[in-house]
Amino acid sequence: MGALEQLKERYKWIYAFQSAESLLQWDLETQMPPKAGEYRAYILGKISGFVFSQLVSDEMGKLIEEAEKEAKSEEDKALLRFARIDYDKYKKIPPELWEKFSIETAKAQRAWEEAKEKSDFSVFAPHLSKVLDIVIEMAERLGYEENRYDALLDFFEPGMTTKKLNELIPSLREFLVGAVSKIEKVADVEDVFKKWHFDVEKQRELSKKVLRVMGYDFGAGRMDVSAHPFTTTIGPKDVRVTTRFDVHDLKYSFFSTVHEGGHALYEQGIPDEWRGLPIGDGASMAIHESQSRFWENVIGRSRSFWEFFKPHLEEIFPQFKDVNVDDLWKSANIVERSLIRTEADEVTYNLHIMLRFELEEALVNRKLNVEELPKVWNEKMGEYLGVVPEKDSEGVLQDVHWAHGTFGYFPSYMLGNLYSAQIYFAMRKDLDVDELVRNGQFEKILGWLREKIHSRARTLLPGELIEQVTGEQLDSKYFVNYIKEKYSRIYGVEL
Amino acid sequence: MGALEQLKERYKWIYAFQSAESLLQWDLETQMPPKAGEYRAYILGKISGFVFSQLVSDEMGKLIEEAEKEAKSEEDKALLRFARIDYDKYKKIPPELWEKFSIETAKAQRAWEEAKEKSDFSVFAPHLSKVLDIVIEMAERLGYEENRYDALLDFFEPGMTTKKLNELIPSLREFLVGAVSKIEKVADVEDVFKKWHFDVEKQRELSKKVLRVMGYDFGAGRMDVSAHPFTTTIGPKDVRVTTRFDVHDLKYSFFSTVHEGGHALYEQGIPDEWRGLPIGDGASMAIHESQSRFWENVIGRSRSFWEFFKPHLEEIFPQFKDVNVDDLWKSANIVERSLIRTEADEVTYNLHIMLRFELEEALVNRKLNVEELPKVWNEKMGEYLGVVPEKDSEGVLQDVHWAHGTFGYFPSYMLGNLYSAQIYFAMRKDLDVDELVRNGQFEKILGWLREKIHSRARTLLPGELIEQVTGEQLDSKYFVNYIKEKYSRIYGVEL
Repeated sequence: MGALEQLKERYKWIYAFQSAESLLQWDLETQMPPKAGEYRAYILGKISGFVFSQLVSDEMGKLIEEAEKEAKSEEDKALLRFARIDYDKYKKIPPELWEKFSIETAKAQRAWEEAKEKSDFSVFAPHLSKVLDIVIEMAERLGYEENRYDALLDFFEPGMTTKKLNELIPSLREFLVGAVSKIEKVADVEDVFKKWHFDVEKQRELSKKVLRVMGYDFGAGRMDVSAHPFTTTIGPKDVRVTTRFDVHDLKYSFFSTVHEGGHALYEQGIPDEWRGLPIGDGASMAIHESQSRFWENVIGRSRSFWEFFKPHLEEIFPQFKDVNVDDLWKSANIVERSLIRTEADEVTYNLHIMLRFELEEALVNRKLNVEELPKVWNEKMGEYLGVVPEKDSEGVLQDVHWAHGTFGYFPSYMLGNLYSAQIYFAMRKDLDVDELVRNGQFEKILGWLREKIHSRARTLLPGELIEQVTGEQLDSKYFVNYIKEKYSRIYGVEL
Repeated sequence: MGALEQLKERYKWIYAFQSAESLLQWDLETQMPPKAGEYRAYILGKISGFVFSQLVSDEMGKLIEEAEKEAKSEEDKALLRFARIDYDKYKKIPPELWEKFSIETAKAQRAWEEAKEKSDFSVFAPHLSKVLDIVIEMAERLGYEENRYDALLDFFEPGMTTKKLNELIPSLREFLVGAVSKIEKVADVEDVFKKWHFDVEKQRELSKKVLRVMGYDFGAGRMDVSAHPFTTTIGPKDVRVTTRFDVHDLKYSFFSTVHEGGHALYEQGIPDEWRGLPIGDGASMAIHESQSRFWENVIGRSRSFWEFFKPHLEEIFPQFKDVNVDDLWKSANIVERSLIRTEADEVTYNLHIMLRFELEEALVNRKLNVEELPKVWNEKMGEYLGVVPEKDSEGVLQDVHWAHGTFGYFPSYMLGNLYSAQIYFAMRKDLDVDELVRNGQFEKILGWLREKIHSRARTLLPGELIEQVTGEQLDSKYFVNYIKEKYSRIYGVEL
């Protein structure tokens, strides 16, 4: 067997353990007996340490080096390209640092939970400082050209830089801040999704229905409940989504299901035979987010979607018979100055991200102290969103990401939104999206995404992929145009 | 760190992977998406191969050797004793043979499924022959003194031999065959557990109720549904049971839940800190079965249990208000000449096992050909049970065990029954069992089992344990007396 074949076999062998890890994690979040948590954390640590050690072993390095000489096909060349990127990246982090990171982030997460519960930032601050120190050490080891934060950004969105973000953000922020002001002057929408008490079992039925409509394959997946909805791939033909129900707010479960469904369709579209290989994954976090946001917002919150879906909704919740399509559509698109990112609408969402990006970039470059965070957070909230949290649990303590040490991740959410709009405009050149949605012909839309994005998996860098799919580099004008087009129509106001 | 500490750490590390394996297997049987099966088989193979390789590594051998010199406490000495037993045993099997065994048994299982479906033994026969060849090679490598079958028996019930079984069986068989004849002459019981249609959700509630009553800790476990009920330990504080519902037969889910609950109470009683170590397990398959059978039969099918449990049953199924305790008790103890082992009552069950023991002992010693199996099976069924299957799916093809290659396992079921009765008589010296059951004071009964059996885990060989618990070696007279006492009372006939 040649080195290339050996390398592939090795990756697939390691993936068996990653697959087990995914199931252990999924189980932990959906159904694990409450007392089993301590031991579960122990095993997850051991297995993930083992996987890491296998991926960065010298033997693996040698196999990659040998296989690089053998790769002929485009597919194999892509495989080796990403094998090299990953290996070189992870190899720069010593196992002891990785272990320290695991231990400190686990502690920080517990501290964050307590701090959020008590709304007391001082409980979290010392842990955040420790995590930040480790993250900075990692960034230094990973290396960067201009800005230390780039090393972290690159982890989640290869090729993205602070400079590029700083070019994108100002005009986008100005537009969004202005749009919120204009919309709030005219907005007067009653949220029909909060009008009744919605039975959980019926909500479950509705969630399953919309997943089926989108093209999610229940033969190769499941839908369960977890505190924070997520999507996970256990292995080929096993992509699971979770959701959460609020009896007072039908929107919550519905759009989080559609969102996770978007992630899941991407995962179900990745070629099975590539699973476990460096190419057998999503292209990046932001590309992944573009798929979930596309389904959730571009499709799921469109007027034509509600034209199509209203009869399905009525079948399960007959009270909607007296509600017209416009009210459904408007209720799905209420714009509000709000404190919590995860509950934010499309217009304000990116403002939440910009705030986090600026803060973490400053933290990582030691331009801001951990202790100053709550103050600066609240100032920026006032500036961008016009609302200031009364307590830190609704402000700086709302997200778990920093406790996890995932600095550099937040921009993926914004980039995902921008990508989704750019992909949408490209799709409209090939398909009458509106008409397809109105007729429930989602297989054509999914087919387009499968061909252009899903089936390519991680054979390209995200920047390359978006260029191939849309014909150009990331440009925020598509998102701006999308917001203008949609919200001007909803609220009858020029944005 | 000394060798002993290193060894313990190593075992616990390996156990992390075994724990993942258990979860993957549990998931497969309870909830995995249907299309995920092929890949799941692949990962399970890889992870179990890895675990095996770790357990028999030379490094492990050296650690055990070094640690043997360090062990001082009783606990550590027991640990090293069983570490040595396991290591020497598994080391005798070359990894290639182990892999061949995995592959051939996986194929044999698929063939068995098809054969059972079609009731065509010829589909299964060639696979069974291959599996048998491997099993015989394993037995030869494992070694034995008198009978090749002893090598396999010892795998599941260390210390047990063909000779000992052949001493036990004849008189027991004679008694049981006679008992069935006497009972059937007078039996005339209407099965009240089959009288109504039993809603699945209510059955689920009933199953959970009886588990709680027994003392099963739902904070450290779950109950789910699978085609074949089982109990599995994912790790400390995570012992899960499954059951299965039949709307026409309440007995099915009820007693299978109590049975699995018995296994689970044993597992929940094993000290957490021993998990992963050679002592952190049940003492043997038969001792495990003694616990499940004790709860299912000795407790769950006793008159005093139904005196206590009737009001609980009525709360969920009010139709039982018109049924008296005696009818519940009799219905729980119907004796029948039947074809299927898993559905057999206490009186006939061991006859099914004796038949299997004789056949597999003959197969392993090449005294019987695979092709002759259906004929001999049917002859023995006529002789011991007085019924002959009309098709092989209800005869020789009913059990999956031989497809799994687990020759030597069946006797554990019978031994479990015998142990359970012997344990019961020992318990009666200390406790008024009947009175405790009548009052629902199961914590006293569980406390006794915890102290005498569960907390000792696998620090003793099964024969040693039973001697410590009951004061003597295994003796079938306790089982015989138990059957005489109970069934003479139920059917008013001298047995």
